[in-house]
This record gives sequence, C-alpha cells and structure tokens, in this order.
Amino acid sequence: MIDAPRYAELAPPDRILMGPGPSDVHPRVLRAMSTPLIGHLDPAFLEIMDQVQALLRYTFRTGNQWTIPVSGTGSAAMEAAFTNLVEPGDTVLVPSNGYFGLRMAEMVRRAGGDPVPVAAPWGRPLDLEDVRAALAEHGPDVVAFVHAETSTGVLQPRVPELVAMAHDAGALVVADTVTSLGGVELEVDGWGLDVAYSGGQKCLSCPPGASPLTLGDAAMARIRERAEPMRSWYLDLSLLEHYWGDERSYHHTAPITNVYALREALRLVAEEGIEARWARHLRVAGALRAGLETMGLSPHADMAFWLPSLTTVRIPEGIDGKRVARRLLVEHGIEIAGGLGDLAGVVWRIGCMGHSARPANVMALLAALGGVIASEGGTVDQPAGLAAAAERLTPHWSGRVR
Amino acid sequence: MIDAPRYAELAPPDRILMGPGPSDVHPRVLRAMSTPLIGHLDPAFLEIMDQVQALLRYTFRTGNQWTIPVSGTGSAAMEAAFTNLVEPGDTVLVPSNGYFGLRMAEMVRRAGGDPVPVAAPWGRPLDLEDVRAALAEHGPDVVAFVHAETSTGVLQPRVPELVAMAHDAGALVVADTVTSLGGVELEVDGWGLDVAYSGGQKCLSCPPGASPLTLGDAAMARIRERAEPMRSWYLDLSLLEHYWGDERSYHHTAPITNVYALREALRLVAEEGIEARWARHLRVAGALRAGLETMGLSPHADMAFWLPSLTTVRIPEGIDGKRVARRLLVEHGIEIAGGLGDLAGVVWRIGCMGHSARPANVMALLAALGGVIASEGGTVDQPAGLAAAAERLTPHWSGRVR
Repeated sequence: MIDAPRYAELAPPDRILMGPGPSDVHPRVLRAMSTPLIGHLDPAFLEIMDQVQALLRYTFRTGNQWTIPVSGTGSAAMEAAFTNLVEPGDTVLVPSNGYFGLRMAEMVRRAGGDPVPVAAPWGRPLDLEDVRAALAEHGPDVVAFVHAETSTGVLQPRVPELVAMAHDAGALVVADTVTSLGGVELEVDGWGLDVAYSGGQKCLSCPPGASPLTLGDAAMARIRERAEPMRSWYLDLSLLEHYWGDERSYHHTAPITNVYALREALRLVAEEGIEARWARHLRVAGALRAGLETMGLSPHADMAFWLPSLTTVRIPEGIDGKRVARRLLVEHGIEIAGGLGDLAGVVWRIGCMGHSARPANVMALLAALGGVIASEGGTVDQPAGLAAAAERLTPHWSGRVR
Repeated sequence: MIDAPRYAELAPPDRILMGPGPSDVHPRVLRAMSTPLIGHLDPAFLEIMDQVQALLRYTFRTGNQWTIPVSGTGSAAMEAAFTNLVEPGDTVLVPSNGYFGLRMAEMVRRAGGDPVPVAAPWGRPLDLEDVRAALAEHGPDVVAFVHAETSTGVLQPRVPELVAMAHDAGALVVADTVTSLGGVELEVDGWGLDVAYSGGQKCLSCPPGASPLTLGDAAMARIRERAEPMRSWYLDLSLLEHYWGDERSYHHTAPITNVYALREALRLVAEEGIEARWARHLRVAGALRAGLETMGLSPHADMAFWLPSLTTVRIPEGIDGKRVARRLLVEHGIEIAGGLGDLAGVVWRIGCMGHSARPANVMALLAALGGVIASEGGTVDQPAGLAAAAERLTPHWSGRVR
C-alpha cells in the first residue's frame, strides 16, 4: 500500500509573465475556465465550437472553412500541420533562422518527409534569394517557414513575396504563427498562406491546450488525396473533419474547458479589434524596446525585422544571464527567459504578448531588470530607460523637468 | 475586411453529466482552473509537476517513475502509448470486445505495427483461451486490451491471468484504463501491467486536456532501444523524458491550467482514499443499476463483468433511443449517450463517474429516464425503480410503508 500523498491547496506564486509564453491571462479568460462543463457532443457545445471557429477566422484574417483549435498545445498544432500535409517521400523546404525552424524540420522527418534546410543566421530574416534558389533546385511539395521566431525575436518580412515564389514553384506554404497570431500583423488570406498554426499562450493570452490551425482548400485537398493514412490518429484532420465539420460526429473528446477559454480570449480580440490589437502590441513593445535601448542594452534583432511580441536583447559582457533571470523571478516575480540553441547564454528573451502587453508590465520589467543588472555590476542607465519608456507609453507620463 | 464576430458571455446550460464522459467536475477543480498561470519552467511549476506525478502514481497504484500527464485528451495518451511502444513491423495482439479495442488497432497501424485482432462479442469479456491461442500462433511483441470498455460497459475480469499469459509469451501489456482509473479497482503494479493510460474526464472528474500515462521499466527500455524514432515528435517520450525527468529542460509548453486541474482532481482522490473511491462507485452505481433493473430495463453487461462507472441498458422495443436521450438533455438537463458501433441504437450508456457518482444524480436520472420512457409509451415501473435505488443508496431513505 502506498500512502495517499498530501499536498496543500494550489497556490502558485504571483507572476508577471514577460517570457516567451505563457503570457498573463486576462481575468475574464480565467473566469471562463471555471465554468461547469457540458458534453463535447451537447448541441450547446457544438454552437460554442461554431463561435470559436468564426472568432479564429476573424483573428487569422481568413475565410478558411478549415479553421479549428487542435486538442493540444502549440506543438500539437504544428505536428497536426506536418503530419497531415506531408506524405512519406515528400520534399519540404524549411528555410530556417531559429530554433522553431529546426523543430519544423524534425516534424517533417517524423511524418516521413524529406526536409531540405535553407539556413539563415539566428537573428536575421530568411534570405529570399536563397529560398528562390532552393525552390529551383529541389522542387519541394511544401515550403514551411516561421513567421515570428520566438527563439530570436525576428519577424519575417516580405511574406507575400515568399508565398508567391513558393506557389510559382508549385509548393504549398505553411507558416508558424505561434508568436504572431493576435499580436502582430498577419493576413492568412491576404498573403496566400495555405496553412498556419499557432498557440494560445502567446499573443492570445489563453492558457495552452487548444491551439489554432487553419488550412485553405488546396491544403485540405492534398490531405484528402493522401495515398496512405497519416501517422497520427489523434491529429488526423480527415477524421476530425467529421467532428468539426457538418456531421458533428465523435472523434475524440475535445478539451472542453480549453475551448471555453479560447472562446473568451478570442472574444477579447474581437472586442479590441484585430488592427487595434496589433497597434497596441507595437506601441507597448515599442516602449519596451526603447526603454531597453536607452538603458544601454542592445536588441539582438534589427528594428527592420523586429518582432514586437518578443524582444531579444544581448546579455551585457560579464553578466550572468541565468542569474539575472532567476533574480527577476524570485525577487520581483517577473518571468523572462534566456536564449535557445545558438542564442543560449547570448540573449534574454522578453515577451510582450496579449494581456502582458500592458504599460504597467513594461515599467515593472524595466525597473526590475535595470536594478538587477546594476546590482550585478553591469552598467545600465535605468532612470533614462524608464523615462524613455514612460514617455512612449503615455506622453503625459513624462516626468522630465522642462 | 471581416467584421469582428460578437458573441455573448459564455453561458452554457446547466447539465448533470451522466454520459460516458465528461463527468461533472468538482467545484474545487473548477476553481483551480481559474488560478493565474505561471511559466512551464518556473521552479514552482516543476514542483507542481512532481506532486502531480506522485498523485498519479498513488491513483494508478504504481511505483513507476514514468508516470505523467500527456498534453492532450485521453486519445492522446492512447496514441502516446502506441506510437512510442510500437515500431514498424511489430506485431501487436489486440483482443477486443468494443469500440475502443478497434481504435487501439487503428493506432497500432498508424505507428507502423501489425495489429492482430482477437474478436469477442460486444458486451462480453475477452475470452482468455482465445487470447492464449493467439499468443501461441502470432508471438506478438505487445498485447493491448481495454480494461473498462466505455462502449459496452464491460469490465475485463481476470486481468492478472491475462498479463501473466502475455508475459510468458514474451509480450509487454498495454491496458486502456480510461474509464477505470480512479473509479474501479485497478492495480498497475499488482497486476503487472507494463503500460496504462487514461483520461481526466471520466472517474477523475477533471476537464479533459492532460491525460494520465504510466510505463514500467521494461516498456521504457523498449522505447529507449527503438531502432528508428517514433512517428510523433509531440508525444515522443524519449524527448519528454528531459522535461518530466530530472533535467527539466524544455520540450513543449505544458498545458499549465490542465495540470492545475489534474492536481486538484487527484488531491480529491487522495483525500477520499482510492479504495473508498472504488467502494463509492460500486455503491452508487449499484443503486443506479438496481434502479434501472427494477424499473424494468435490461442491463447489457452481465453483473459478473459489469463496469460500475458505465452501465449499458437496452433500449426497450418500440422506443426511439435518440429521442429519449435528447428529451433527457433538453427537458431535464441530464446527459446520457447512445451506443457506439455494434451497439448504436441498441443501448443507452449511463455513466456514474467521479463527482457524477452521487446519490442525487442517480435519483434525478432514474426519475427523468423513467418519466420520459413512460411518456414515450414504454412500460417501466418508475416508482419501484426509484425506491430500489433509494434503499440501496441510504437504507434509511426507504419510503415504503411497512
């Protein structure tokens, strides 16, 4: 007999989430999660599903019928995209400039495809001329790229050009929009993306567990015409079609509460308006970036391809980046993250996503980060950084003596 | 431009969930889900993970180190079991007597394995002599069976014998415990099961989204020794090992809120005590079954292999089963379900799981079901059924004139 473990009531510490996700969740979304459950085949739930689909279409800027939350976290939506679209033997061009590009390639491999990498430096956008050359050389079936690289803070520019290039070469295009959806300009239909997937816990500020995925007609046709069944049953869109489509028949039990949460998070997007939301991220994250720079820190991604929802700054010489992040968490309750892969030990990653993209968070972070770096012996001008951010956030906050 | 969709506040109807899952969620679990998030790598979250693992071990009755919640609903845990354990070319014996046995076979196929079915009638347990013969004939690498068939209401008896038989033939054993974990006697270590998986939304009364999985050393060794990587990245246990094991390094973002919920649901199991919980299910579901029988309905599964958490009863001749279920939902707010597969149109499936396994629910269901069947022209003795259930639930409730 094992004794029953005894633990106290759940009481996690209070945090301000300014890392690469999860972001702070809006109180209305938290409240929605305590709503009693109804069945996943209850007519009232089917109506909620319709609403979530409509709200997702609005947020993705698409008319795609095939727009659903995948029953898992962001990587499940990513895997759903690749495991459905890629058949054994397919060639998939994966131009990549960060950690999540590498993950894409790994998922292509697991699906039985042949990933062809086109490497770009971590911290720079993809080079479209390299992509053009690779398209000509390899004639891929699919091109996959990361719109917003959470590992480097780079926002891929010139997406419509990239898409047109791939389409001209006869390839479908998959975009990773995990850190852009709901925070940064994204036009699934306007840009011609065939597939895009995302996560809840970034710019949507929804707890992870039901993850947005959208596919256009060409992608769905490709899936329906597969010669062999895909390698996942759980993520098989040709089966899920019977649940999320008109038939509404059972496939697997949907994560009901996560769907509730996503509905509320997307209602907040719709209330704010998607363009206004993009503008808010730009303004608030712009203040964050200005504050960091003015304080004396160096952003890792150039302004020309800076991702507002995730800013990478270089760890100053002589400073222990891990220790600083740890002190921010323990002493100030603020979460930021270190770098991944090539950028481990080189940068901090500071998120400004969804409900976390608020003036109060930016000021708290700049104050705490500046203070901790200074106390670790670094040279930063914290007061100047704070003033620069405050002025950008709300000009009348400026406390300078004129 | 698409107009922003406008939907009202989330307000699903009030339901009593007596179907095959989800079950009613305890208010404490709902409240836990509105807890603000912390990061999936926050030291405080890592501690919560440890606690959830310990609580899962207690509930599974195992010492298996490899005991985790999979980031998805029950079918994701099922897929995790098969996609990790089965290599292309492996033979997997899948004796099956219901819908979920067939799903297992399909998942084995997706993993590249060869499923060998051993069919038993839907509503009867597996025939161990048939299994023995199939073991001798096919020499499988793995044997997979459903401990509690949610489609038929059959609880597989003689599991230790089945396991011993498989082990003697050199095969590992996987058990589907989706509808037994936390509600019906289950002894992972005591019975020698190599792998068991479950869902949250059945006898644990937790919203679906983080699903229990446990693997013994032999199963983990098999996974570590795979010749080729498994076909899923998201569910790859050899990678997840770095997150859930000692290293605690990032694989994918955990569904934080679902882990909160599971922790609270498992705390409730530990507070009640696992044996007391099994006894409660037996007592409350026993009253339900007695009430149904006394009312004049026929259970589909014999008492000898009846699954307390899910009772199947035959739809009386001349009654439209779908219409009755629909009226129960709309007029009484009570969810039950029809049959699946071979039993579609033949039975109703009535759950009595976790927080739904309460006297009040049983009485409400019997009153409503009896009333609706009678009003549809069926012959049932509702008062006798109610009295029989009441007497079993709390003997002093008996209202009979003596």
